[in-house]
Parts: sequence; C-alpha cells; structure tokens
Amino acid sequence: MIVVVALNPALDVTHHVDDVDWTGVNRPAGVRESPGGKGLNVARTLHSLGADVLLLGLAGGSSGAVLQSALRASGVRAVFTEIAAGTRRTFAVVDTGRGDVALFNEPGPPVAAAEYARFLDTYTEALATSAAVVLSGSLPAGLPPDTYADLTRTAAAAGVPVLLDTSGEALLHGATAGPAMVKPNLAELAAAVGRELALTGPSDRAAVIEAAAELRDRGPDAVVVSLSAEGLLEVTNEGTWMAEPRRVAGNPTGAGDAAVAGLAHGLVLGQSWQDRLRHAAALGSAAAAAPAAGEFGHANYDLALSSVEVTRLEVE
Amino acid sequence: MIVVVALNPALDVTHHVDDVDWTGVNRPAGVRESPGGKGLNVARTLHSLGADVLLLGLAGGSSGAVLQSALRASGVRAVFTEIAAGTRRTFAVVDTGRGDVALFNEPGPPVAAAEYARFLDTYTEALATSAAVVLSGSLPAGLPPDTYADLTRTAAAAGVPVLLDTSGEALLHGATAGPAMVKPNLAELAAAVGRELALTGPSDRAAVIEAAAELRDRGPDAVVVSLSAEGLLEVTNEGTWMAEPRRVAGNPTGAGDAAVAGLAHGLVLGQSWQDRLRHAAALGSAAAAAPAAGEFGHANYDLALSSVEVTRLEVE
Repeated sequence: MIVVVALNPALDVTHHVDDVDWTGVNRPAGVRESPGGKGLNVARTLHSLGADVLLLGLAGGSSGAVLQSALRASGVRAVFTEIAAGTRRTFAVVDTGRGDVALFNEPGPPVAAAEYARFLDTYTEALATSAAVVLSGSLPAGLPPDTYADLTRTAAAAGVPVLLDTSGEALLHGATAGPAMVKPNLAELAAAVGRELALTGPSDRAAVIEAAAELRDRGPDAVVVSLSAEGLLEVTNEGTWMAEPRRVAGNPTGAGDAAVAGLAHGLVLGQSWQDRLRHAAALGSAAAAAPAAGEFGHANYDLALSSVEVTRLEVE
Repeated sequence: MIVVVALNPALDVTHHVDDVDWTGVNRPAGVRESPGGKGLNVARTLHSLGADVLLLGLAGGSSGAVLQSALRASGVRAVFTEIAAGTRRTFAVVDTGRGDVALFNEPGPPVAAAEYARFLDTYTEALATSAAVVLSGSLPAGLPPDTYADLTRTAAAAGVPVLLDTSGEALLHGATAGPAMVKPNLAELAAAVGRELALTGPSDRAAVIEAAAELRDRGPDAVVVSLSAEGLLEVTNEGTWMAEPRRVAGNPTGAGDAAVAGLAHGLVLGQSWQDRLRHAAALGSAAAAAPAAGEFGHANYDLALSSVEVTRLEVE
C-alpha cells in the first residue's frame, strides 16, 4: 500500500466565463467543484494506475465535507482527520474567450496541536502496512516547518521509504531526515540551494545537476528535478539520468504531481532508477495533456512511455 | 410580523487581494463569507430596525448549510425549505489596490415542484400571523415566471399586503396580481414598460413618472422607483412624491434592499406614503454608506432622515 499524505488539501472551485469583465458583474456559464491540492492529485493518479493507495489528510468545515464526498465518489480510499477550521478553497476564473486563468488561493486553515496528534496516530497505524509514503504539498498554518522531517523519521523507523514533494523551509528540513526521494521543480531547487538556476541552454544543465547533488548531500537517496516540458532530471548514488518526454503543452502542476505518483509507483514495484524515471516522465507528459490535475489518459501514457528518452549523464 | 421571501439566496464569498493578477496566481489577504441575496439584505435591515421579521427561503447543499448557520448567528429568524441542489454562491474579488470589484454570480439551483410545494405550505402557514410580505430577488431555475404572482394572490386571499422587488418577467407577472407596492430601479422599470429611460436632467423625470404610472395601471397600489443616489420616486393613487437624500457614494444594491425594508416597515407601522418614502430613502442612504449589504449605521440613518427632502410632485 502507498500512503499519500495531504495536510493542506483544497476544494478547487472553477468558474468558466466567456470574456470576463474584471471590474463588473459576470455570470459564469459553468461552475466546477473538485477535490484539489498536490496530495490528492498524486493519490488519484496512483488510483488510476491500479495501485493500492490510501490518502491521509486533514479536513474541516463545509468545504472539507464537500472535498471528502467528492473524493469518495472518485473511488480513492481516504481517511481524513477532522479539524475545527475550514479546508481552504481555491477559486479559478477561466476566461474562455481570452484563455486567461486567474487563480485565488485562500490561506490554509490553522491546525491545532491536538488535531495533528490525532492525525499522527492514524499515520503511524497506516505505516505498519505501507510500502511507501508520499508527503506532498504545503503545510497548513500552525504546523512547524519540520513536520515533514518528523513524518519522514517516523516512516524510516517503521522501515517505510518516503517521497517528499514540497518547497521552502519544509523541503529544507525534510531533506535532512533522509527521505528516499525529493522532487523539487527548478524554482524550488533554486530556493533550496540559495542561488538562481535557469535552463535555457545545454550549459545550464551542469548547474542544475550540481544543485541537485548538493541537495542530495543533505540527506535524500535521490533528487528528481521536474523541469516542466523539458522532462525530469534524476541524481542518485548510482548515477544521473535525464528523461526527455515528447513535448506536450499543458498543465505543469498536474504534470509534477503525476511524476511524483510515477516515482512512488516505480519504487514499490522495485523498478530501477531509469525505469522509475521513464514511468514518471511518461505519466507527467500524459497528465499535462489531461484537462484536469490528477487525471491522465492511459493511451496518452502508453504513447508517452514509448517516446520518452532516458539518457545516463556523465558527471565529473 | 413581516415575512420576507428569499427563493434564490446566495452565499457571498469575497476575496480581498492587493493588486490582482488577472492572468496568474493570487493569495487573498482576506476571505469573507456571508449570507447574501436581496431577500436576506431586506430581512437583516428589518431586524436591525427592531421589526418582527421571519425570513422564508430555499436552501440546499453545503453552501446552503453555511448560509443558514451564518444567518442564525446574525439573529434573523428564518425557516428554510431544504432543496436537493446547492444554494448558489457569488464570488467577489475586491482589488484593494486599484479599487476594482469583479463579481461572479453562479446560476441558481434548480427547484423541484415538490420542494416548492413544501415551501408553499410554510408560506401559507406564516401568512396567518403576518402584517406584510416582501417578495425579493430573482427566481431560481425551475420556478415559472408567475411564481410571485401566485404568492401575491395567496397573500391577498389571507388579507396580507405584498411588496414586490424583482425584475423582468417575474415583475411583469407579479404586478398584475395587485401587490401593495412594487419597487423597480430605473433599468427594471425601463424593461417593464419596454422603452429606454434615463435621468440626466429634470425633463427626464416626467418620462419616469409616466412609466411608473403605466406600471401602476397594471395592478400595484404604488410604484416606488429607486434612482440610486438621486433618491426614490413614488407614484400612488393619492399622489406622486420624490425623496431626495443627502448624496452618499456607496453600494447601490444594498441601498435598494434597505429602501424596500423601509417601505415594508412603514407599511406595517401605518405610515403615510410620504413618511414611508422618507424612512426608505434615509435607510437607503445609510445602507449605501455601510461596508456590506444588509447593514447600516443607526447614526447615519438618523442623520439621513433629518436631511431627506420629500417633495410632492404635480403631475398633469
């Protein structure tokens, strides 16, 4: 079983409006409400892959209730620890005429120490039957930045490898606790090593590899950097690989989460570093082409898998 | 007791954002959720005035549950008939830097015949102890445009006068059922009589009076036209009056709803046409100055009441 932890999930509300009047009254043609946040995307992708997945999260208020029932309808097994404050919403306004999207992310709810303690009981219990843990997304208010580090150590004590996908302080602390993998994107990696990184030409790649190796030195077995349409770069103790998928325009958030699902799935299947990376890159590519985060077409995945190029890079 | 009917209330969600990026990601500094819709504004204003008010509405889903509990907290007595579909939300983005407001009004939920029948039982029972009824706002999907006409006739059969504040087909049908008052704004009056109306100079006033008289001929005892900051125009069988308040910049929706509350309050207090109009105009003026619809400052009301000028107009 793969446990996916979503401490700060969201209820995503999307309004579709034809030619928005940003200073006046609009009547959305369509309103869509769906469970969101990175952890939920990862869990849905794993569920679509046929993996045995259990989502553990925090949820509260009416938005939390809607999120839980929508997730239940999608068939993903989940246990939510109830919190007093309401689950955050994101509001997206899609201008179907101009193609613009405006996103409004509400701040996450505060989490009390007693609520987190209840979550921790559920988490510790689930570890006994888990093959891997995915810790995904931001931390809600009230939880300290070393929360993921603690969850990683707890999993390690139970012999369960952890894949960590977060940013900022939570990533820095979490990396030192020795997860099996961390998966920053380029901006998150740059923030973690404290210097600017770009990927505009082949000469930039060496700097990214160096930064990933530097982050790996702090504790993780492997660092996988998601580079949007460029693909995935993987730095491990056995070597460095680059997976370059067929180019697809699309949703980079969904792609990163799908890649995390692929990495976790490859881990529990006992795949080699190269095969995991190929699986993750193909899933990312298929997810980027899907209309909503957490979804992908299996035919697109098969097509992407056959066209991903995985290259071993020689690093001095 | 004054019964206020809100068949299509809303849960108003407001995000305050400093300098919105309409094509990117925003993190609202403040999120506010409050019960909304014209009927709820009228009921809250009447409650603030100390009137005995009962709100009757339809509500469903998680947004309906939030709306009901928030309204309960405000002390307004309310009975909601449960519907299967979810209460609509409005989503306002206030750009605190530029001062712009973008409003996204979700479509209202569909209402089934059996759900409306249950509402009608509650309404009919409440009429037995009512001194007046206010029918306010748009009709949700699934209810025919003569719904307000039916509710007006049912009230008339119980000897209870009706104040109708709606627009379009619902206003045209409702007016023929003989309510005590209808309260269109200038655009709604123009749509009802099928010709353009403006109020840019004193000569335009005659055309507005003529249109109001034409609408009155279709059934209502009185037509009160709300003219934003210009005030209120009242056409009755006893004469025509204009109430001109002190000018205040502010929220015209809230002002119209507060004026309706004042007209209903004046009606049950047995006030003359002039006094009702003065009361309504002062409330509208005080509400326009308030930060949120359905609210007003009592000191602002007292100040406005002393400065409203009510003039009897001679009409040929």
